[in-house]
Amino acid sequence: MADEARPEAGMTRRCLLRCAGGVAVGTAALAVAGGPSVLPVAQAKESPTPWPYKKLDPAEVAAIAYERYPSGLCMNSVVAALITPLRASVGEPYASFPADAFVWGHGGVVGWGTMCGTILGASVVANLVCGPGPLKGGELVVNELVHFYAESVLPTWVPPKPRVAAPPLPAKPGSPLCHISVGTWMKKANHGFFSPERKDRCARVAASVAAQTARYLNDWSEGKFKPQHKFQTVLYDVTSQDNCAACHRGEAPEAVTTGNP
Amino acid sequence: MADEARPEAGMTRRCLLRCAGGVAVGTAALAVAGGPSVLPVAQAKESPTPWPYKKLDPAEVAAIAYERYPSGLCMNSVVAALITPLRASVGEPYASFPADAFVWGHGGVVGWGTMCGTILGASVVANLVCGPGPLKGGELVVNELVHFYAESVLPTWVPPKPRVAAPPLPAKPGSPLCHISVGTWMKKANHGFFSPERKDRCARVAASVAAQTARYLNDWSEGKFKPQHKFQTVLYDVTSQDNCAACHRGEAPEAVTTGNP
Repeated sequence: MADEARPEAGMTRRCLLRCAGGVAVGTAALAVAGGPSVLPVAQAKESPTPWPYKKLDPAEVAAIAYERYPSGLCMNSVVAALITPLRASVGEPYASFPADAFVWGHGGVVGWGTMCGTILGASVVANLVCGPGPLKGGELVVNELVHFYAESVLPTWVPPKPRVAAPPLPAKPGSPLCHISVGTWMKKANHGFFSPERKDRCARVAASVAAQTARYLNDWSEGKFKPQHKFQTVLYDVTSQDNCAACHRGEAPEAVTTGNP
Repeated sequence: MADEARPEAGMTRRCLLRCAGGVAVGTAALAVAGGPSVLPVAQAKESPTPWPYKKLDPAEVAAIAYERYPSGLCMNSVVAALITPLRASVGEPYASFPADAFVWGHGGVVGWGTMCGTILGASVVANLVCGPGPLKGGELVVNELVHFYAESVLPTWVPPKPRVAAPPLPAKPGSPLCHISVGTWMKKANHGFFSPERKDRCARVAASVAAQTARYLNDWSEGKFKPQHKFQTVLYDVTSQDNCAACHRGEAPEAVTTGNP
């Protein structure tokens, strides 16, 4: 065992393309035992994780995320939505955690369209609450959350007081990449990236992801969290999404250029 | 001005595919003025960023990252490489920052192959040192770092005492995505994902990215950091990489299935 999970017998050389669409594997415990632990940084005084936790109210969490979005964008909305109630209910070490410094994930990392910032924000907090990996602790929550994101029709959450009157059309991202998630929605809804409708869509996605993370963390705290999916490197022998054909078979749609002024 | 940078006049409706390959824009100041600031989370006691900084030695930073890789993998290697010297030279608030909880970016976020974990780790620290965005502070450093990563022949750093005798072949990722960066290297080097050679390649990439981040932060601290690139949403009217044709024209190579046992 080295620094990544090894494939199980029979899973090796599995063709990427045959795996497209994802592989659910039941509810057996999927944490990979025997992986290395992370050594403490020299002279650290950091509060060791997992940090103390009190159950979150998903509805409250979603409302905070939606409210936060115009100033914090997607990553910070999710970080603030999860951290704010824990500051009130638990206090330290959440109180001194520099939540305001986690804005940079917006647009799939400063606009590069890679991993959706909502998942990056959730990853920060899940690994504080459940402890770090590799391939255990908060990473089990993150892996489930990526599946939830890619495979759900988003947004799942509807604000009681929406900032945009016309509700954003829901769409299934099919991928955790911001570019694909946002681009798919833009094409379906015919709204540009800088439109109020796109921003409201992403605010609602942030609220949806924050609420789902809260549900996972609540289950974790009660010992009821059951991962439904293996890690990607176990399935593919390489780091990967599940949508291989989009690039390797050229099935990506036409580039979106509509809707911007 | 809303929650993302707006395109400049003449940049709107710019075809994604025509922009493939990236657009350098000289050294003019590229921070977008007038964007919203991030409101503090209620009842926070967090240390406001930017945090105090003392110049880092890129060679020391690279060595720490390489040493850290087997236990911390890519994201944590970069976080530890930058934070450890700052704990020694500055102390708080770096000392109590939970660096060990930032492992989850490995494999492009728990193996999903999205943004390379080295850039995620650098993003964490750059935004503590330079302050948060959107589209200012540490995000200017992150944007340059993504260009450095995608457009350089990596790894740039060679360990004085390598763990693997045969040096990994350098390769240009052409993308900040872990899947493309690692897959391109695996195909060129004919080594599998779980091979010692691939792990040593990623350890050297972590060291290369950590050292480059240290150089950028040193320049920032002396007022000499000059961004060379605009933000992606300004160029493309959507969040995006620069390698549009890989997916939209189906120019992605055959899936890599070689080299694993």
